[in-house]
Amino acid sequence: MSDHISLPLALAAEQFAKLPGVGIKTAQRLAYHMLNLPEEEVCEFAENLVKARKSVKLCRCCQNFTERDICELCSDDNRRKDQICVVESPKDVSAFERAGGYEGLYHVLHGLLSPMDGVTAEELKIKELLARLGDVKEVIMATNPTVEGEATAMYIGRLIKPMGIKVTRLAYGLPAGSALEFADDVTLVKALENRSEL
Amino acid sequence: MSDHISLPLALAAEQFAKLPGVGIKTAQRLAYHMLNLPEEEVCEFAENLVKARKSVKLCRCCQNFTERDICELCSDDNRRKDQICVVESPKDVSAFERAGGYEGLYHVLHGLLSPMDGVTAEELKIKELLARLGDVKEVIMATNPTVEGEATAMYIGRLIKPMGIKVTRLAYGLPAGSALEFADDVTLVKALENRSEL
Repeated sequence: MSDHISLPLALAAEQFAKLPGVGIKTAQRLAYHMLNLPEEEVCEFAENLVKARKSVKLCRCCQNFTERDICELCSDDNRRKDQICVVESPKDVSAFERAGGYEGLYHVLHGLLSPMDGVTAEELKIKELLARLGDVKEVIMATNPTVEGEATAMYIGRLIKPMGIKVTRLAYGLPAGSALEFADDVTLVKALENRSEL
Repeated sequence: MSDHISLPLALAAEQFAKLPGVGIKTAQRLAYHMLNLPEEEVCEFAENLVKARKSVKLCRCCQNFTERDICELCSDDNRRKDQICVVESPKDVSAFERAGGYEGLYHVLHGLLSPMDGVTAEELKIKELLARLGDVKEVIMATNPTVEGEATAMYIGRLIKPMGIKVTRLAYGLPAGSALEFADDVTLVKALENRSEL
């Protein structure tokens, strides 16, 4: 950061530049915004972030972020206990819940297997998944349709199938509202392979 | 924010969503990043922002952000004291200093006249500018080449000219490294009007 800009501006910009996807220009813009806010609002912003970080725990059951021991979804009696949808991160749980239509439970891996980045099975919440499969009839592997997502789904599937539990994978296909001409080849081939009768 | 995502995640995301140019998806991504950081790093992030906000003052002379009474630029004996470059915001001072080549002083207005947004002359640091024109020979109006920037430059120019001080405006023209075919009409006309001899 240039030493010509004022120290407080540089200090604030430095903080924002630590965030993923925030470059120097954006960091400076955000810092400028912060320094123009009333002091109380900046304090509130900062305190709420610290509060959120301090109060966050991983649900003992599904490993999702929560401020309780067992999260709301896991302790909801209206949800099916025999289906577990395995996702990469808490954001994915939000996505499914927003979409609606799924009534089972979740399991958050907090990452995907990635030998390139040195992420091994021990770093993911796989042990915790295996430990909660008692009455489970189906495990839905809902990791992203990427190389890492596929590899992780395959790896976990291979661990679970011998236990006599059904393991399924999200469907590949054309996204709703998209156009054929813009679909990539892999998606198009999968959409054709997985065609269903009208 | 959906009530299905965990409370700490929602709380953190809410904070980021307050920032300008940060939508819900980005806010959630940043919140997720924060909750995955070690607690000390989140505290450091928060404390530094509050520290920056608390330590920031406006330079008594040029109104730029600083942590001192008189900023570094204003107290630098090597700078020309008879030239003042008037800009909208502290970011613009950084931009000029980064570019180099200017050795005079600055004056930060902290905004532009904008009747549409209810920003009047009283809210800008115009009084402070007029109060420091004693030995000044030239005031360079370096507000953005936008409607508000032009209007503000004109307004301030009209106040200063009667004091016998030279008032200048940044040149309009083609940006370096750009292509004629992509220039907008106004820029092209101005570039032609302001052509210089080779």
